[in-house]
Amino acid sequence: MSKSDITARIVQVRAAMTEASVAAVIIPHTDYHLSEYIADHWQARRFLSGFTGSAGTLVITHDTALLWTDSRYFLQAAQQLEGTGIELMKDGLIQTPSIAQYLIHHLDKGDTVGMDGMLMSVDATYELRRELEEAGLRLDLTFDPLKGVWNDRPSLPDSKVFVHDTKYAGQEAREKVANVLDNAASQGATSVFISALDEIAWILNIRARDVACNPVATSFLYLSPEGGVLFIDAAKIDDNVKSYLADNNISVMPYDGVRDYIERLPSDARVLISTSQTASEIDRALGNRAVRGKSAAAMLKAVKNPVQIQGVRQAMLRDGAAMCQALKEIEDTVESGSRLTEMSVADILTKYRSRNDLYFDQSFETIAGFGPHGAIVHYEATPESDAEITKGNLLLIDSGAQYLDGTTDITRTISIGQPTDEQRHDFTLVMKGHIAIATAVFPEGTRGAQLDAMARMPLWREGKSYLHGTGHGVGHFLNVHEGPQSIRLNDTLAPLTPGMITSNEPGLYLSGRYGIRCENLVLTVKDMTTEFGEFYKFETLTLCPFDRSLFDTSIMRPDEIEWVNNYHACVRERLMPLMPSDEMRSWLIEKTEPLTTDNN
Amino acid sequence: MSKSDITARIVQVRAAMTEASVAAVIIPHTDYHLSEYIADHWQARRFLSGFTGSAGTLVITHDTALLWTDSRYFLQAAQQLEGTGIELMKDGLIQTPSIAQYLIHHLDKGDTVGMDGMLMSVDATYELRRELEEAGLRLDLTFDPLKGVWNDRPSLPDSKVFVHDTKYAGQEAREKVANVLDNAASQGATSVFISALDEIAWILNIRARDVACNPVATSFLYLSPEGGVLFIDAAKIDDNVKSYLADNNISVMPYDGVRDYIERLPSDARVLISTSQTASEIDRALGNRAVRGKSAAAMLKAVKNPVQIQGVRQAMLRDGAAMCQALKEIEDTVESGSRLTEMSVADILTKYRSRNDLYFDQSFETIAGFGPHGAIVHYEATPESDAEITKGNLLLIDSGAQYLDGTTDITRTISIGQPTDEQRHDFTLVMKGHIAIATAVFPEGTRGAQLDAMARMPLWREGKSYLHGTGHGVGHFLNVHEGPQSIRLNDTLAPLTPGMITSNEPGLYLSGRYGIRCENLVLTVKDMTTEFGEFYKFETLTLCPFDRSLFDTSIMRPDEIEWVNNYHACVRERLMPLMPSDEMRSWLIEKTEPLTTDNN
Repeated sequence: MSKSDITARIVQVRAAMTEASVAAVIIPHTDYHLSEYIADHWQARRFLSGFTGSAGTLVITHDTALLWTDSRYFLQAAQQLEGTGIELMKDGLIQTPSIAQYLIHHLDKGDTVGMDGMLMSVDATYELRRELEEAGLRLDLTFDPLKGVWNDRPSLPDSKVFVHDTKYAGQEAREKVANVLDNAASQGATSVFISALDEIAWILNIRARDVACNPVATSFLYLSPEGGVLFIDAAKIDDNVKSYLADNNISVMPYDGVRDYIERLPSDARVLISTSQTASEIDRALGNRAVRGKSAAAMLKAVKNPVQIQGVRQAMLRDGAAMCQALKEIEDTVESGSRLTEMSVADILTKYRSRNDLYFDQSFETIAGFGPHGAIVHYEATPESDAEITKGNLLLIDSGAQYLDGTTDITRTISIGQPTDEQRHDFTLVMKGHIAIATAVFPEGTRGAQLDAMARMPLWREGKSYLHGTGHGVGHFLNVHEGPQSIRLNDTLAPLTPGMITSNEPGLYLSGRYGIRCENLVLTVKDMTTEFGEFYKFETLTLCPFDRSLFDTSIMRPDEIEWVNNYHACVRERLMPLMPSDEMRSWLIEKTEPLTTDNN
Repeated sequence: MSKSDITARIVQVRAAMTEASVAAVIIPHTDYHLSEYIADHWQARRFLSGFTGSAGTLVITHDTALLWTDSRYFLQAAQQLEGTGIELMKDGLIQTPSIAQYLIHHLDKGDTVGMDGMLMSVDATYELRRELEEAGLRLDLTFDPLKGVWNDRPSLPDSKVFVHDTKYAGQEAREKVANVLDNAASQGATSVFISALDEIAWILNIRARDVACNPVATSFLYLSPEGGVLFIDAAKIDDNVKSYLADNNISVMPYDGVRDYIERLPSDARVLISTSQTASEIDRALGNRAVRGKSAAAMLKAVKNPVQIQGVRQAMLRDGAAMCQALKEIEDTVESGSRLTEMSVADILTKYRSRNDLYFDQSFETIAGFGPHGAIVHYEATPESDAEITKGNLLLIDSGAQYLDGTTDITRTISIGQPTDEQRHDFTLVMKGHIAIATAVFPEGTRGAQLDAMARMPLWREGKSYLHGTGHGVGHFLNVHEGPQSIRLNDTLAPLTPGMITSNEPGLYLSGRYGIRCENLVLTVKDMTTEFGEFYKFETLTLCPFDRSLFDTSIMRPDEIEWVNNYHACVRERLMPLMPSDEMRSWLIEKTEPLTTDNN
């Protein structure tokens, strides 16, 4: 789409605003399920701004248009917004006002801010309303800025639902429904309304292809002791699935009938909603029936069962073997002098991963950033940007797959050609942080935010840093980002619990030069019980060598060198049986040799 | 007081409860200013329970009585509550219900919970009320459980107010008032009501002796652009102070006239209160006039000015010299075979500290815990417990002083006689955590909670831990505990800002055996500015040797050994000029020699 398309669309939105007496409209990047990754049907922010990042909110007033996004997207957004008249607001910087602060400053008392209340959580709406109303502004949650503007809006996703076999899921839907209702009861509710697509998929052991890379089905779920209702487009459900659901006491109703349904629930119903995962308009429809609490499913879903863990271990073997083959092909291609670009890296990865029966999809769009592109945290190569990979800089590859038995997410940074001392130094700082997390031991109750700074301290000591989180929860054949746990600067209050899978991915980004990120997935496991209680640690699940040429052992402690060598020995042992050729076996041996400590 | 006194008092409270139709009463340990350390007038919880700890809340129902306190006081509370029929509720343990949870479970729907609403913050009352009301209980904030029960209640403290000289405070009251009003304006208020005694003392540059160890004056302060009102007992203010206050446009009104005054403020007044530091009954009296926000003074007070920092540096020299002399006298006394007990340690410390002109008071009651007593985190020796200090165990000494130019707080753990290998191992683990904090570098915006786990990780790796915070803010010739910053498991969201003084005090407590804590005060200072922003670090302010005999260098990294040696070299250099004798000079040299690394 062209810059002038964007300008024209914003003019149309302003006309709709004038008609509805709305002084500003907020357009978040999410869907009615408050998803992070969304289907085309809900890409309104992209449609109105041209910005394609996975996070960012557009605000349009009668004389300004602004896009708030976080540090991952500062560079990309600046490029994509150029010439549209939309101003970039860099979220997370001290000088950047919040959306509410901006509106309060920019609008007049008595003005109305409009938005679609299905696109903001109960919590966020509550805060926004409080801030706006204290400053004399009104909030109208029924304003649809797209009416008459987005005429060729894509329809709702229509992929087919299929049942996820218990041999992978490890637990019957019936049992999960019971556990979720137990949790709801502990929060004072008798039934549960669930909007989060990954929770619905997890509870019912169903999957679909409604959102790229996220094997979910667009739906809402209401669960009560008498049975459940899945609100979903009937065309998505074949007889097989329908009878599977019926066997689990789940009936099917139309997706767009959900608000009607909950508005007609008995007035004494006590329906749990997660205030962070449910849209405020759902809350309003529930009214006094709403029990505003925490997700009844999030912790249950985050703690993987033994079958899931065993599945992920198997998936990691296949994913690691595919990574090794892809890395070798990348190396060989550059070495041979053939042309290799960032976009072809994604193809090479998919080629090897998809050779496996259990492969389903990517778990997110591959990030392959060479040199300066590696410094753009969530860079996604486009035909316009697609850089050739040549000797003399670092290549950052962040990728992952959905397998029926588990989800992977791995980042490796490799040197194309001989690295500089500075690159080796920086890479080693990042690895020191990675190792600090990988080797952490911590008591029951510890949250990721308490560990986060350990990953950053080696960088901080030299005045360097990264602004993204160190780790996110990972679903099981589900969303690659899931809560409630994380390892971040800000505390999410969810304790790291045995069975949780979390990423460990510190990084460093030097604008215009190169980016480094080193990511493995780790499983929280029990370590020991002492007079001071239970202690946990992480077991690294991901299996793939780090680039040995990038370690500067002169700034590593003996225990750090030992960790790398042990990890590489483990990678060699586990992946060797999966290497398809002598050539690959030799490659793996070379890549997993102990670090040489006289390489300076 | 005897156990039967306690029982009789609780019976009387229950009679008052019956009369007022109250099913349970909550008796917090605080005053109308929500202070941590309180005058005798407000020691209701001690009066009714016999428990003397500085934290803990008593709850009385018609058939139960319970005391919630935290891990620092588990042992002490168990001893003091024995035989009273009051049950100890161990706060912070997963299995311990909160007070609200207990009341919801124990009482019947429709029951009323009573308390004095001047003893709980707006925030805490809001949460409590929400929880109780959602469960069908009522909260009555006007119930006084002491009426007719506490007949010999001590009167309000009556110490004289004096002016704290600007040569120590570094800033005129007038300027502070203006800054506080500016902050209030930024929160949408035109005036400020302040309850926190240390904030009032800081803003007005006044001090008194109303609370042991806390040089504050019992008062409330209202500030508006037209002038201020100090609500205080007139007998505490002499003509000098009165005219000083008048010069600063502060008039004086009776302490008990405060509620009347704020109820009569114009209805359009916009009065900022800190919702965490203001009693809910003050909020109720203000009604629509209240602007519920954050303290307008806390951050300004926490960031020390150059005069204050210079003063603390001077105070540290004197305090360190006094500590050295006290430690030598303790060693010599034990060595000579003379009797030395825990209580005499406090006397020895005060003897040396009080020799100085600028000495004003202790900054808290000295903790001198020998052997098993060291494992009681906030142990305070009594004539009954007072243990003799003999060779063969560790002595933990946590003490501090109020000097006119600064407040100190230091903990040293020393071995009396030859330490065991286990004691040296444990001590060294604690020091590794201490050093991790002392050497941390972190970007602008970092909160203490992000660094906290670094102090704990060396212990966690061996299944050991401590439950108290790693660090608290320290006032300047004011409360030894102050906010907003801290280094704790839980996030207080206040960034560590240059000029803040914070303690660094990891520990380890082996019940029935010994306790270890190593505490210095650290100043946040600027470190460097890079393309990634501003970076800060800590400068250690406290000057006193750690016990060299307790280091096990075999588990220390070279940089940790170097930190100890550099610290000791600095202690030697700075304190040497203050050593009063050749004997003390020799002692200091011996105690600050570099660690020997062949001592295993």
